[in-house]
Amino acid sequence: VSRTATAALSALGRRIAEPPISWLMKQTLEHPGLISLAAGFTDNPSLPVAETSKVLRELLADSGAAQVALQYGSTPGDAALRQLTARHLQALDTGRTTRNVSPAWSPDRLLITHGSQQLLYMITEALCDEGDIVIVEDPTYFVFLGIAQSRALRCRGVPLTPQGLDLDALERLLDSLHRAGDLKRLKFVYLVTYHQNPSGLTSTLANKRAVLTLLRHYERRAGHPIFLVEDAAYRELRFGGKDVPSLLKVKGAESRVIYAGTYSKPFATGIRVGFGVLPEALFTTMARIKGNHDFGTAHLLQQILVGALASGRYDAHLADLRVRYAHKAAVMKAALLEHFPPFVEWCEPDGGLYFWARLPGRMKTGRQSRVFREALAGGVLYVPGELCYADDPSRDKPDCEMRLSYGGASEKLVPEGIRRLGAVIRAHA
Amino acid sequence: VSRTATAALSALGRRIAEPPISWLMKQTLEHPGLISLAAGFTDNPSLPVAETSKVLRELLADSGAAQVALQYGSTPGDAALRQLTARHLQALDTGRTTRNVSPAWSPDRLLITHGSQQLLYMITEALCDEGDIVIVEDPTYFVFLGIAQSRALRCRGVPLTPQGLDLDALERLLDSLHRAGDLKRLKFVYLVTYHQNPSGLTSTLANKRAVLTLLRHYERRAGHPIFLVEDAAYRELRFGGKDVPSLLKVKGAESRVIYAGTYSKPFATGIRVGFGVLPEALFTTMARIKGNHDFGTAHLLQQILVGALASGRYDAHLADLRVRYAHKAAVMKAALLEHFPPFVEWCEPDGGLYFWARLPGRMKTGRQSRVFREALAGGVLYVPGELCYADDPSRDKPDCEMRLSYGGASEKLVPEGIRRLGAVIRAHA
Repeated sequence: VSRTATAALSALGRRIAEPPISWLMKQTLEHPGLISLAAGFTDNPSLPVAETSKVLRELLADSGAAQVALQYGSTPGDAALRQLTARHLQALDTGRTTRNVSPAWSPDRLLITHGSQQLLYMITEALCDEGDIVIVEDPTYFVFLGIAQSRALRCRGVPLTPQGLDLDALERLLDSLHRAGDLKRLKFVYLVTYHQNPSGLTSTLANKRAVLTLLRHYERRAGHPIFLVEDAAYRELRFGGKDVPSLLKVKGAESRVIYAGTYSKPFATGIRVGFGVLPEALFTTMARIKGNHDFGTAHLLQQILVGALASGRYDAHLADLRVRYAHKAAVMKAALLEHFPPFVEWCEPDGGLYFWARLPGRMKTGRQSRVFREALAGGVLYVPGELCYADDPSRDKPDCEMRLSYGGASEKLVPEGIRRLGAVIRAHA
Repeated sequence: VSRTATAALSALGRRIAEPPISWLMKQTLEHPGLISLAAGFTDNPSLPVAETSKVLRELLADSGAAQVALQYGSTPGDAALRQLTARHLQALDTGRTTRNVSPAWSPDRLLITHGSQQLLYMITEALCDEGDIVIVEDPTYFVFLGIAQSRALRCRGVPLTPQGLDLDALERLLDSLHRAGDLKRLKFVYLVTYHQNPSGLTSTLANKRAVLTLLRHYERRAGHPIFLVEDAAYRELRFGGKDVPSLLKVKGAESRVIYAGTYSKPFATGIRVGFGVLPEALFTTMARIKGNHDFGTAHLLQQILVGALASGRYDAHLADLRVRYAHKAAVMKAALLEHFPPFVEWCEPDGGLYFWARLPGRMKTGRQSRVFREALAGGVLYVPGELCYADDPSRDKPDCEMRLSYGGASEKLVPEGIRRLGAVIRAHA
């Protein structure tokens, strides 16, 4: 008889794998002096210390408001924050700020969460059983793949183009799922639509709309709605290009689109507040799941955001942040031009935190590769591209790419990290 | 073909029921002027506004520390908070404060969560598949029952005595599970050991130890460890009696006991920080689940607790809080003596937030009962006792009890609420 704890674990408990993040952090700890271009951390000096101080001072000076902030809130989230968030999203999508929010961005369908990560987790709980299928981008956000792995979801990757999901490939996949009788297991498509993690690409509205139309077309065969999760985590970290409206703006989309947003990246990652705009038919279920998780997002954190948004400090901070990331991206670009050999392909992001670089096919970048190990020995860490691809049996994982972040490392270390990495790549050319 | 969202839901999504909390809150909203003795809210005027202000002022004045607080932390939690928490628990269990913590309370096995509720949720994820069995107290914390319901766990209730779990009844249950071949589905026993929600009872150390010994005895037949979750949410809200050590103090218990603690109730419910001390064999799995939920508890909240604990403000606040709850409990007791007829049984708590009252068997208190409906019409809300009993097919749910909280309502409203309720009960006598 086994007395080991493993024998008592659930299927999920037995299955859940070490997340790449832990493994990458371990490398950082074990290699002092390492420059990490891997972490998706935001820029430390740009964190809103002064803004948060002011907001908190005002909040806590009013003892009535302070008591409310230090007490439980309601499960879906603070009414003022839901209202401000709905208004904020409407303004992003339409350019218009009005006191009344149109139903497309209704605060009644808005759920506040501990970061958008928690929202993604709860979406899989609400929609997916073991073996259910989720379509993701090739490449995609690797922490989402970790959720899927632990919950035994089958992910299918569709190539990402500069406009968004490859529509022909998506249609072929939907067709093949239909032929295999698997369409009924397809629950949603997960898209990171702005300054994508890891590729930096932003999907066009036309592309997103076409994806939605295609999904609608296959719904009859699926026997249920196929939802589209639009993860807009990096949307507000735009420093170039034009803003693209979200699918919330598309008429009739509100019954199929789950918009995942966050205040963590644009304001402060230590204040974990994210949100989802949900189809009405999913709202109650998701709110119940949220209630079982934690009754609702920490009220004090929500009140900080209310103060920051209502006072205009959020917008002012964001304007500074954009200038700062534009500068750091330019620093990384200059370093890439100087230190990377021309056979490495990359393109310039106009927002977010990442460059995505592609080496020639024969040069592997994975965790076991010589490039990765020598980079580590040479004092620089990146996210191996292979981690960003779903375990999709229908194709091999590309493994000659790397995600390079200019978020966490300082302006001095970014070029030095790229110089070290460039030297390793050149040595293998 | 169904196009409704329901058809796309997971089994969990289809199953999850409305939580009693939502239903109770709805009653509050729909009945203006209602005095709620139902909410498990803490006392608003006692919330640590001044303490939190001072801690935050100090924290945010140091821009290095402030940046750390506003940045991501690590998934298991802030190292300083884990260390302070381990020391705090050791001091509670032994009365000794030492810089070095003995392995029984090791910070290495400590996981910081968004309230202890999140920890409870993740325990069920790590250990339980659908249909697995959890033993709970009769009565128990109803929100835990909500988690179990949504995850299709089978809960079995064992009566609670003034010393803790009824050991004979527990043994009979374990025997019957064994005979039915169900012992392999039993994953853990869930106990709320201090000033229990809802009964107010505190388990003795001897009782907890006996439960653990009994579980060990049945482990061989189960084929795996049977864990014991000691939920100590109300432990620090003690205003009478003696402190009782937790099972962490018992030699050898650390491989079977999951200690669930929280700073929410003793400090501020709006600062949602809880924690678990886990068996080493479960730690990695639980940390991975936490990573998938949200990467780690909001760093700013953790830093507030670090500041409060390290400065002594936490302890000072707690001392005030105990005086305050002792007073509010005395106010409710006096009102019960004055307004409740003598045939209603209740006993005086020496901590926590609740009185638990038992009416004669013929007087039902459930949501559909005349007592409940007339109480609502008369302007007072309580938690019907039936909500605190698991759906255990082996017994009927007692339905003539009520949970009465002196936490949220003011000292003026507590006696008025009890007066209203007493009048309804007398009218039905």
